[in-house]
Order: sequence, then structure tokens, then C-alpha cells
Amino acid sequence: MKRLKIYVLGIMFLSLLMFGLSGCGNGEVKETAGADLKAIPEGELDPAVWGKTYPDQYASYLKNNEGGQTQFGGSEKVSKYLTQPLLPELFKGYGFAKEYNEDRGHTYALQDIREIKRITPKSTGSCMTCKTPSAPGLIKEMGLKYYSTPFSEISKQVKHSIACADCHDPKTMELKVTRPAFIQAMQRRGVDVSKASRQDMRSYVCGQCHVEYYFKKDTKEVAFPWDKGFSPDEIESYYRQVTPGFQDWEHPDSKAPMLKAQHPEFETWQSGTHGSAGVACADCHMPYEKVGKNKISSHQWTSPLKTLERSCGACHRNGSDWLKARVTFIQTKTFDLLLKAETASNAAHKAVAKAIATPGADPNLVKQAQDLVVRGQWQWDFVAAENSTGFHNPELALETLGKSIDLSRQAELLATQAIVKK
Amino acid sequence: MKRLKIYVLGIMFLSLLMFGLSGCGNGEVKETAGADLKAIPEGELDPAVWGKTYPDQYASYLKNNEGGQTQFGGSEKVSKYLTQPLLPELFKGYGFAKEYNEDRGHTYALQDIREIKRITPKSTGSCMTCKTPSAPGLIKEMGLKYYSTPFSEISKQVKHSIACADCHDPKTMELKVTRPAFIQAMQRRGVDVSKASRQDMRSYVCGQCHVEYYFKKDTKEVAFPWDKGFSPDEIESYYRQVTPGFQDWEHPDSKAPMLKAQHPEFETWQSGTHGSAGVACADCHMPYEKVGKNKISSHQWTSPLKTLERSCGACHRNGSDWLKARVTFIQTKTFDLLLKAETASNAAHKAVAKAIATPGADPNLVKQAQDLVVRGQWQWDFVAAENSTGFHNPELALETLGKSIDLSRQAELLATQAIVKK
Repeated sequence: MKRLKIYVLGIMFLSLLMFGLSGCGNGEVKETAGADLKAIPEGELDPAVWGKTYPDQYASYLKNNEGGQTQFGGSEKVSKYLTQPLLPELFKGYGFAKEYNEDRGHTYALQDIREIKRITPKSTGSCMTCKTPSAPGLIKEMGLKYYSTPFSEISKQVKHSIACADCHDPKTMELKVTRPAFIQAMQRRGVDVSKASRQDMRSYVCGQCHVEYYFKKDTKEVAFPWDKGFSPDEIESYYRQVTPGFQDWEHPDSKAPMLKAQHPEFETWQSGTHGSAGVACADCHMPYEKVGKNKISSHQWTSPLKTLERSCGACHRNGSDWLKARVTFIQTKTFDLLLKAETASNAAHKAVAKAIATPGADPNLVKQAQDLVVRGQWQWDFVAAENSTGFHNPELALETLGKSIDLSRQAELLATQAIVKK
Repeated sequence: MKRLKIYVLGIMFLSLLMFGLSGCGNGEVKETAGADLKAIPEGELDPAVWGKTYPDQYASYLKNNEGGQTQFGGSEKVSKYLTQPLLPELFKGYGFAKEYNEDRGHTYALQDIREIKRITPKSTGSCMTCKTPSAPGLIKEMGLKYYSTPFSEISKQVKHSIACADCHDPKTMELKVTRPAFIQAMQRRGVDVSKASRQDMRSYVCGQCHVEYYFKKDTKEVAFPWDKGFSPDEIESYYRQVTPGFQDWEHPDSKAPMLKAQHPEFETWQSGTHGSAGVACADCHMPYEKVGKNKISSHQWTSPLKTLERSCGACHRNGSDWLKARVTFIQTKTFDLLLKAETASNAAHKAVAKAIATPGADPNLVKQAQDLVVRGQWQWDFVAAENSTGFHNPELALETLGKSIDLSRQAELLATQAIVKK
């Protein structure tokens, strides 16, 4: 009986492959559109117009309005302070201490950036670069000036939140990278994005925004710090060597010149199990679904925990309960260590502040402690800011948090020793 | 062409399943023996005698003499001090500071325990429990007295290193757990080992020895601390609550009452990806192989890195290069964090020693620091003593190392503060 069961499972597996539903074969399966391929006028940015030609994909895209939380993430505007109460301390003196929420769906990106307290009169066009399909056109039109133009001015010129034109060529519907920073950073790494395979493009279009980035000092141009590699250490070393003196802000307690990590999903994913096996972002986040007689990629970008059977089940035949338990196991371990890293980083800021306030404390040790505070919090933030609670690369995430704790606790120790020495 | 390739791969996969070579279906595949099933006389412990009836399995068993290292482990008698030079410091005052080697194959277990410097005139029969198939018989014969009898006396009564009778019923050849500690510990957890499935037994026979254990205070009986669970935290809490005051030794620098972890492979594996998916120890460590016309399980117990294609390839069709790279990725991250945890633990011992030597240092803080030293080194040792450099459960291993670093660095800090307060 059991042997029979294996054969039946085997045949089911083969059948799945033959139906082309599986994402695990990297099979370059092309989806069928509701209509025959039809070009959209060049420069058309309104997703509703694209939706007239591609109604199934558009209906799926509109589901980004739906929201829905998961245990550690999801797509609701929930303050991160609720589960990570130390965040306002760690980001004291910086925008992320004012408001820091879980992101809503891509359809809300424009509204949410306009409303968030982190946007100030000093904010520039750079902050709009990934929020609207208008950005690439404005950059082409205005050149580098786009990035340093006040956010409020750019905001007046844009109308749509992230949409079809951000990732698709309107003529051919082929996937297309539209953000210059990604193309340039990959070029510096010797990769010609225009020659990428379709499977690569199924990650690149996401990776043009879901990355660590910074604004260049004078021009405010968006740039990706990838020249030395994609790991937290390599990116930190980029900042030290390519942009010496660069800091996002100074922490008012420790006076340390801090770095803020952005959402490094693309960097994290690629050396993980899935990334290294050639599984693209879209394989899990845009699983195939049947709509009437058509098969489309889901255009509702959210946690695959909501589509476990289609997202994971195409390759992993262990059943949804087991799959969910595995994700929970990984994310719980990551989140627990994340909180410990936050406690350590917070204690380090406080210890350095105390040393600074103690007359006669050894200034060399204080300086060393400040360096360690920056490095410790950077390693933590690389994981904390990444939108998978470790799932995209559990080993990298957990090792990075372990290193963060080591650095922050050493900062605390050196600050304490600075007082002892006195 | 690419679609064709998928079909061909799919058919190959199905064929493999039909040949019953795959371990990933938990298919309870029974191997074919060279001879028809033939009973071995009850009480026969010499593997060479079993080998006359089962020559293929015996030939495979003899390959345990071969040795062979991998990047982070393997089966050669190599001192662990070479790659982890802080070990003699961390185990100062204890046997593991005298000699601590990578283990050779099971065929050398008896010779190696007799020769190792950790065995002293105080050592008892307990230390022989997992080294020879004579142990279960002696325990039956001598009762609890076996465990407290001097090692040297027990040693005179045993002849063979780990062999067939340790895991097989001589009459039926069925797998059989022969060590009382495993049966009792599982019973306390509500598991009747005599009713285990064959797939469970393919881990249980390994788990009767590849575990965390301790010797009961007066009788020296071998016992497994599993009543509260299998995690490092749960086992630590067992020692605190079930055996209060229990310590393996006192560290001469920090005067901390230390715990030594043994090789907790069974505990670590079960909540990892493979364990939770029902993949047994034998699926990877005893892959099927063809010998002439027969299919047998390999009886050469060593790193699956040496049999990647058969051990991992039965389920993972990504090719040996990718598989090996994944293992290396996981083990490198684990080993790097392991070394950081060693540095932290060593620094903690030294800082506590310094506080103890400082007249007037706050004794409460010193006591707290000692507690943290013990807990930090326990968490580290749980991973360090486990024979997979994190592979059996990367998330557990890396989280545990992160916690270890956190605890050890806090110990160092408190010890430093004990001096400041003065």
C-alpha cells in the first residue's frame, strides 16, 4: 500500500510538471493572458487603463487593497512599536522614531508616503523614486535634478501608486527594470541587466526597489551599495570605504554616527536556500492561479503564508500544516533573537551615554564603544528592516543577529570600562 | 527544449521512486539481504560472526575503519584544539581540557575510549555504555552496579567495538533499541519505544547514544534529561529543577559550576527541517547502495558529505555542487559564530576571575556573573558538542549561539560592573 502511495505521489508530481504549474523547475513557463497580447500606449501609467486589456491581472492587482496580517508581518498599517517597543529608543533623533509601520499593499504606497511623519519639508524626490510609475519618466525628463527637488513638488506631479508600468514594457509586456540605481549597481558588478533571463527578471523587477539604498551626498541620487557584495559586512565596508564619513544620523544618547538599513530583501534572498537554488521572488510571491480558463501570476504582492499551497506547495509536497510550522519555527527564532539584539543595542547606547556624562572617562574607549554601537545596530537593522523575519535566509539572518549582539554587548562593556579606568 | 528537460527530469524522478531508491518518501522500503534472513545465535556479539551471514553489510561496516575528514568534521582522530584553540581554556579543570578529538569510526570506539586521557581511575562503567555491544548484557547481568563499577574492570569484560548487536535483534534482524536510558527517557515522555514504526527506529537506534546524557549522582546510572523537552533551554531547566545543584565541574578561573554538553544530535535533529519532515538519521547517514545484485543500507556511519549524491540526491535534485555549497554555507556561518561564542565565554571566565581577585568587588554581581557564565557556555556547548556544525538544525544552532554570546557578554559586563561599584 505504502509503495503504491509513492507511485501515486510520483505520478501526481509528474502531472503537475506537465501542467506547468510548478515553479520549482525554473521552467520559464509563460502565463496565458486573458486577451491576446496587445500593446499599451507608451507612457500610459494608469493601471486601470492597462486593466482594460488585462482584466484578470488587474483584478488580482486590486487585491493589494485587501491587507491582512500574518504572525510577524503582512500588509496592514500596524505600528512596529507595538511588538518592538525599543524601536523609538534605537532610532532616537531620526525619522523612524516618529512613525514606523508595517507596509500596506503596493496600491497604497503613494498615499502612505504622503501621509507618513517621516516625510519633512527637507525630504526630496528621492523618497518618491519607488512609490509611483511616474518616477522613471520624471528622472528621464529632469535628470539628476529630480532627486534633489523637494518631495512636495514631485508629489504634485504624480498620480498613481506602484503599478503595471513599474515592471512591464507597455509594448511587449516583457518584464523591465525601470529604476536606474538597480541597472547601474548591477553594471558595476559586471551584470548587464538588459541580457537577463526571464527567471532572473522575475527577481530583478522586485530587486529594483526591495533593497538597501542610500542617497548620494550632494545630488541626493538614489544609489545601491553593492560594489563589494550583498552581505551586511560587505555593504558596511562599502559605506566605510566608498562613502567615508557617511552617516544617516547621530544618535542623541551615544552620539554615535548611525547607519539605517532599508529593506534588503534582494540582498538577503540571493544567498539563501531559495535564492541560491534559482527560485525567484515571483515564484513564491506571485504564484500561478487559474482565473476562468486562464492561468495568471498573482499580482497581489504579500506574504506567501496567505497562499501556502500554491506558493510553497508547488515544490514542497509536505502539506500546508508542516510548511506553516517550518516558517513559524524560523520566524519565531529570528524574532526572539531580534528582540535580544534590540535590548543589547539599547543598553549599549545607554552605557555610552553614561560614559560620556562621566567626567574623566577614557575618551579612547568611548570612541571605540561608539564604533561598536554603530556596527552592532547596523547588523541588527539589516535583519530587522528586511521583510521576512529571517525567512528569506535564516542562516544569514540569525548569524547576523548573533554578531549584532556580540558587537553591542562589547560596546556596553567598553563604555563601562571607560569609567572603570578613570 | 527547456520544457522537454523538465519532462525528462520528471520521468527520471518517477523512475527513481519506482526503483525504491529514494529515502524522501518515508516509504518503509526494506532492503534485500545477501542471504535469506537467518537468525544469529542470541548473545553473539562478534560482528565477524554476523558478517558470515550478512557479508555485504559487514563489508560496508568494515569501511568504518577508513576515516576521512570533511571541512568541519569527519572520522579522523584530529584534535579539536587545532581549529578551536580556546577549548582548553573553556574546559579548564575538566577532562575535555586534556584531550578532545574528532571521533573516528564506530569500529574504533572501544580502542579510542580505552586510550583517551579523559578516562581516569575514577571513571566507571557508565563511560563504556555506548562503546560496545557487551554493555546491554552486562547491565542486565549486573543491574545498576554496572554503572558504578570501575571502568578498568568493565573494560576487561568487553571485546568488541560498536557493532551489529547494538541495533539489531539477532533473531529477526529488526531494529532494536538496546540502551535502557533511551527507553526510560522516552517512556517518561509518553513514548513506548517498543511500538515505534520502522522509520522512527531508523533514528531511535542512533538516538540511544547520540544524545545529551548525564550520570546520576550516586549510582552513576546513565540518564537522559528530556523530561521537559529537547531544546537547550528545556534541558538546562531539567538540570536546574530535576537535579538541583548538579554540576559537571567547577571552572578554576571563574569558580563557576559548569555544565558539559554531550553530543545532542538526536535532540537537535528532531526540530530541524529534516527531523520535522520525518527524515530519519539513516536516510542520510546510511544511504542505500547496490552491492552486486543486492541493495543494502550503508553501514559506514560518517558524514553524508562523502555520499552526497546518494544521501541528499535522493530527495534534492539540485546537483552535488549546489548541495555541497549549501552545507558549506550553513556550516561556515555556524562555525564562525561558534568561535565568537568561544571568545565571549572565555572573556567572561577571565572577567569573573578578575572580579574575584579584586578586593571589595560586589559579591552579588560576581554571583550573577557566574550564573551567566554557566548559562552562556552551556548554550555554546550544546552546539559545539553536536556533530553537524549546525547542519542538523541551522536555525536552532545559530539562535543558540546568539543567545550564548548574549549571556557570556553580559557575564563579562556584570563582572566588570562588580569592580566599578567598588
